[in-house]
Amino acid sequence: MNDALTRAWRASRPACSGGTVASYIPALAGADPSALGVAAVDAEGRVYEVGDARRRFTIQSISKVLSLAYVMTELGEEAVFSRVGKEPTGDPFNSIIRLETSAGRKPFNPLINAGAIVVSSLMPGDCPADKGERFRSYVGGLVGRPVVERDEEVYLSEKETAARNRSIAWFLKELGLLEGGVEDALDVYFRQCAVSMDAVDLARVGAILAMDGIDPVRGSRAMAARTARVCKSLMVTCGMYDGSGEFAVDVGVPAKSGVGGGIMAAVRDRLGLGVYGPALDERGNSAGGLAALRALSDELDLRVL
Amino acid sequence: MNDALTRAWRASRPACSGGTVASYIPALAGADPSALGVAAVDAEGRVYEVGDARRRFTIQSISKVLSLAYVMTELGEEAVFSRVGKEPTGDPFNSIIRLETSAGRKPFNPLINAGAIVVSSLMPGDCPADKGERFRSYVGGLVGRPVVERDEEVYLSEKETAARNRSIAWFLKELGLLEGGVEDALDVYFRQCAVSMDAVDLARVGAILAMDGIDPVRGSRAMAARTARVCKSLMVTCGMYDGSGEFAVDVGVPAKSGVGGGIMAAVRDRLGLGVYGPALDERGNSAGGLAALRALSDELDLRVL
Amino acid sequence: MNDALTRAWRASRPACSGGTVASYIPALAGADPSALGVAAVDAEGRVYEVGDARRRFTIQSISKVLSLAYVMTELGEEAVFSRVGKEPTGDPFNSIIRLETSAGRKPFNPLINAGAIVVSSLMPGDCPADKGERFRSYVGGLVGRPVVERDEEVYLSEKETAARNRSIAWFLKELGLLEGGVEDALDVYFRQCAVSMDAVDLARVGAILAMDGIDPVRGSRAMAARTARVCKSLMVTCGMYDGSGEFAVDVGVPAKSGVGGGIMAAVRDRLGLGVYGPALDERGNSAGGLAALRALSDELDLRVL
Amino acid sequence: MNDALTRAWRASRPACSGGTVASYIPALAGADPSALGVAAVDAEGRVYEVGDARRRFTIQSISKVLSLAYVMTELGEEAVFSRVGKEPTGDPFNSIIRLETSAGRKPFNPLINAGAIVVSSLMPGDCPADKGERFRSYVGGLVGRPVVERDEEVYLSEKETAARNRSIAWFLKELGLLEGGVEDALDVYFRQCAVSMDAVDLARVGAILAMDGIDPVRGSRAMAARTARVCKSLMVTCGMYDGSGEFAVDVGVPAKSGVGGGIMAAVRDRLGLGVYGPALDERGNSAGGLAALRALSDELDLRVL
Repeated sequence: MNDALTRAWRASRPACSGGTVASYIPALAGADPSALGVAAVDAEGRVYEVGDARRRFTIQSISKVLSLAYVMTELGEEAVFSRVGKEPTGDPFNSIIRLETSAGRKPFNPLINAGAIVVSSLMPGDCPADKGERFRSYVGGLVGRPVVERDEEVYLSEKETAARNRSIAWFLKELGLLEGGVEDALDVYFRQCAVSMDAVDLARVGAILAMDGIDPVRGSRAMAARTARVCKSLMVTCGMYDGSGEFAVDVGVPAKSGVGGGIMAAVRDRLGLGVYGPALDERGNSAGGLAALRALSDELDLRVL
Repeated sequence: MNDALTRAWRASRPACSGGTVASYIPALAGADPSALGVAAVDAEGRVYEVGDARRRFTIQSISKVLSLAYVMTELGEEAVFSRVGKEPTGDPFNSIIRLETSAGRKPFNPLINAGAIVVSSLMPGDCPADKGERFRSYVGGLVGRPVVERDEEVYLSEKETAARNRSIAWFLKELGLLEGGVEDALDVYFRQCAVSMDAVDLARVGAILAMDGIDPVRGSRAMAARTARVCKSLMVTCGMYDGSGEFAVDVGVPAKSGVGGGIMAAVRDRLGLGVYGPALDERGNSAGGLAALRALSDELDLRVL
Repeated sequence: MNDALTRAWRASRPACSGGTVASYIPALAGADPSALGVAAVDAEGRVYEVGDARRRFTIQSISKVLSLAYVMTELGEEAVFSRVGKEPTGDPFNSIIRLETSAGRKPFNPLINAGAIVVSSLMPGDCPADKGERFRSYVGGLVGRPVVERDEEVYLSEKETAARNRSIAWFLKELGLLEGGVEDALDVYFRQCAVSMDAVDLARVGAILAMDGIDPVRGSRAMAARTARVCKSLMVTCGMYDGSGEFAVDVGVPAKSGVGGGIMAAVRDRLGLGVYGPALDERGNSAGGLAALRALSDELDLRVL
Repeated sequence: MNDALTRAWRASRPACSGGTVASYIPALAGADPSALGVAAVDAEGRVYEVGDARRRFTIQSISKVLSLAYVMTELGEEAVFSRVGKEPTGDPFNSIIRLETSAGRKPFNPLINAGAIVVSSLMPGDCPADKGERFRSYVGGLVGRPVVERDEEVYLSEKETAARNRSIAWFLKELGLLEGGVEDALDVYFRQCAVSMDAVDLARVGAILAMDGIDPVRGSRAMAARTARVCKSLMVTCGMYDGSGEFAVDVGVPAKSGVGGGIMAAVRDRLGLGVYGPALDERGNSAGGLAALRALSDELDLRVL
C-alpha cells in the first residue's frame, strides 16, 4: 500500500503544474501550487501517507459533507431533506436560477451552495460562533482530536467577499428555507468552509464513510450507517462540481472536493482517501489530487462502479 | 440466493398496487399492473429468477444504456462524447431548455432523451431499419440469442405520438449534433425503445456490466471494460430519472429504468439484476421493481456506495 | 373634460370591488379598497380631478420612473444605461433568473426591481437619508412643492421584509453593477418606494412627460426632452408589469403603476393622468384605475398607438 | 414631405455600409447592401417615395403582423389570443425555452416565431398552398393589387433549412397549440415569410394601421379598428427584435422589421412608412432603414411616445 501511494504521488506531481491556485481571496492565493499530499486509511485502521499529507488547508466545499453528517446526526434525515433535495443538478455549484424556476423551490442537494447554506442554518447552537465551535468539535471527534482548527484569515476574507452567497441566502430566506437570520446562516457557513484539516484527516473521515460509519482506527461506530450512505451517495452524484460525471467514469468512487485543494474519497469496505494539492483544474478540483486518485483507482482497482 | 430473490419478490408485490401503468400510448396501457418479475445472474453465470421474469416488455429508456454501449463499441468513446456530455442534470428526461441555455450546447448525458437521440443517430447502417436490426443483433449477442425482438405496435405507436422528441431532435439538428436526417435518427430511437426483453435478459446484461465486460454465463469478454464502466457511471448518476439521487441513497447500485416497467442493475463483481413491474411510481420508475431492488440490496448488502 | 373624468370615475367604481388591496405589509393592507380618484392636467396646465384624487398613497413602483428621470438628470443617460438595458422582459418584476443567464448580465430595464435598484444606487448624496431627501426634493420640484413626503411606516416595513430584493441586490453587487454598499442601495430604494403622493401629483408629472419635459402648469422646462422620452418609452413597453402588452392594446398610452394603487400616464402633447385605487388586480395593477384609464382613453380618444 | 423624405434618405445612405446582408440562405445573400428606399403614405392617401422604394424584397417577419391581422379578421381576437399571449419578452425571437418554463405554456406574443407559427396554423384554407394563396390575396387587398407575389426561391430555401423553427413547431404541437399538422403549419409560415413586397406597399399597410383601419388611399375601411390597434401595440412593444426598447426611445413609433431588409411603421392619424435596406445591424434590423426612420421621426416630430 505504501508503494502504491508513493507511485501514485510521484506520477501525479507533474499534473499540479497544469492547475492554478484559487485566487478569489488573498488567503488562498498564497498556497504552494506544487504541494501534493496523499493519505489513506484502510479497513484495519492503518494510516498511510506520502508527500504533503500533513499540511493543513481549508476544507471549503468538503465541509458540506461534514455539516450534512453533523446535522443529520443531531436532527435526523427528515429535518434536512424536507428543505433540500437529494438529486444531482447540471447547474454550477453557486447557481441561484433553479430556486426560482424549479417546481419544488428547494435546493437540489446539500452539496451545492444553496443546499449547504440551508444545512448550516440548521446547526444547533446559541449563535454562529457557538455553532461553528460545536461543528469543529464534531469534526474533531471524527478525526481523533478534541477540535479541528479554523483559518481565521480565510474565514474573515470569505465573509467579506461573498456577494453571490448572500444573494443565494436571501433567496432561501424568501422561500422560507432558512432557520434564523440570513447573516447568521452565512456566518456559520463561512466558518465551516474555513475549517482547516490535512490529507490524513480527510482519509480518516473517508474511512468512516467507507465503513458505513465505523471508525476503523478506533474500531467503534462514529456515525450512523444511514448517514454515511447518504453522504456517499451524494458524493458520487455531485461531489466533484461539474466534473462529477466524468470523475465517476474515470475514478469510480464517491468523493468530494474543495477549492482549498482537498479531496476526500470513500471506497466501500476498503479505504478512506485524502488528497491535498491546491493547484486546481478549470472546474475547481485539485489537478494533482485528481491524477493521484485516478492512478490509485487503476492500481488498486478501487472502482465501485 | 433463490430464497433472497423470492423473499424480495414476495415483499415487493404489494408495492405494485401503489403505481400506475404508463398510458401515453395504448400499447403500454394494456400491461398487467400486478405483474412482478425478478432475475439475477451471479459472477459464476448462474441465473436466478422468480415471478414474471420471463414476461417480455419493451425496454424503453433502458435501451439508452445499450445503444451507448453499442455505439461506443462500434465508433469509440470520443465519437459519442464529443457530441454529448457525461454530467448529470436536474432537468426532466425530456427537457429541451438546456440545449438553448447551456454554454456547451450539447446534451448533458446519453441517458436523457436529447443525448440518447444523438447516440441513435450515430448507429452504423444503411437506413433506420438496417440500423435497428444491427442494434437488435448486438443486444441479442449480449443475452445469448441471435437477435432480440421488437414490439411493432409500440414502435409504431411511439413513432406517431412523439411531438416532444421531434422538437428535441430538430433542436439537435440545428446545433449540428445529429448524424443524418432527423426523422431517421428518431426512427432508430423509437426502434431501440421498442426492443422487447424480459427480466432475465436484463440481468444478463447487468451481469456483463457488473463484471466490467466479461459475460459470466459464457466466461468470455462481451464488451470493453471501459465501455461497461462508462455505462455504470452514468447509470448511478442519472439512471433513475428524477429519482436517481434518492435511489443511490436507498439502494446504492448503478441502475437504469424504463417506462415499460423494467430496471437493469449492476453490482460490481457480484451480480447483474433485472426486474419487471409495469406499475410505475410518479417518476416513471417501476414501483414494484424499486421495492424489490431495495429489499435485495438490504438483504444481500449490495450497496457499492 | 370635467364631465369625461366624472363619467370615467363613475363607470369605474364598480371595478374596484374586483380587486384586492396589497397585503404583503400591514401598512398597505389598511387601505380603503373602494377608494378611487382620477386627475388630469392638460396641455394648458389646467388641473381636473374627481373622487379621491387628493388622497395620499405610496407610489411604490411608480418611483422607478421618477428615480430614472432624476438620475438621468443628474448623471446623464450613459451612467444609467451602461448598467441597465432598455428592453422589455417577459419575466416577473422581481425575477433574478435573467441576471444569471442573460448574456449581457445586466438588468433588462430600469422598471423591474433589479434595474431600479441599480438606478437607486446611483443617486447622488452622502448617505441613504441624504439621497432620499434629495430625491424627494427633486420630485417636489416636479409637482410644485418644496418636497414630497415619505410614509415612514411603509418605508420601515418594506425595509424589514425585503428578502427577495436583498437577494437581487447582492446579485447585482456580485455583477459589479451597484455603486456603493448593498444595504445603502436598498435603503434608498425603499425610501423612494415609500414616497407619498396623490393622483393630482401623478397627473402633474404625467403632464411634464406628455409635454416632453415642459411643465404646462408653470410653462417652463422641468426635464430634458430626451429624459421624458426615455421614461415614456419604457413605460409603454414595461410599465404595467405582466399586463403591459394588454394595456398597450386596451388603453394605448405610456403608463406606470405601483402596488400602492397609483397609475401615472402621459398622452403626448395632450394630457398627464393620475389615478388612485388601491384595490389591485391579479397582476398588481389598480383595478379601478385600469377601468378609469380604459374609459377615458375610449371617450377622449387618447390612444397614441 | 418629399423634401423630408429625400433628406432622410440621403442622410441614411452611409448607414447601410455599417450593416450586412442576411446570409443564412443564398437567396437573401445576393441582395444589394447599398440599396435604400423610403416611402410614406399620409392621412390623405398621398404616396411619397425616394430611392429603391419600388424594389421588391421578402417581408419575412413583417408578415407576422399581416398574418395576425388576417387571422383576427377571419376568426376573431379570441381565436388567436387563447393560444398566444400579448406580452413582450426579453428572449430572442427564435427562443424555445419559455414554452417549457413559463406557467401559461403559450408563446408570449404573435411576433416571435413560436407565436407566429401558431397564427399561421389558424389560417383558413384546404391546404398550405390554398392558405398561402388566400393570405396573399388578403395582403393584396390591403395594398391595392389582386394578390402579392411570393419569392419561390426564398420560400423553398427557408423551408429546407428551418431546423430551429421545426423544433419550435413540434413543441407547440406537444402543447396542443397548433391547428392541424406541424409541417403544414410550417409550410404556411414559410410561404408568408417569402411574400414579396416593396417599401411603398409597406407604407400603404402602415397607413391603414395608422388610420385605425381606414385605407387613406381609397378612403374606405380595410381592417377593423381593434385589429389595427392590436397590431400597433404589439409592434411598439416587440416589433424590432431585441432592439424594440431602444427603438421606442429613439424613434418612438410602432414598427415591425424583417430580415429581408424591410421595416413598416405606423404613426397614428398621420403616416404609414415603409423602408427597405437589406444591410442589417447585429439585431437583424435594417441599418439604413433605422437611420432613415430616426431622421424622419426627428424632422417631422413623429414620436407618439
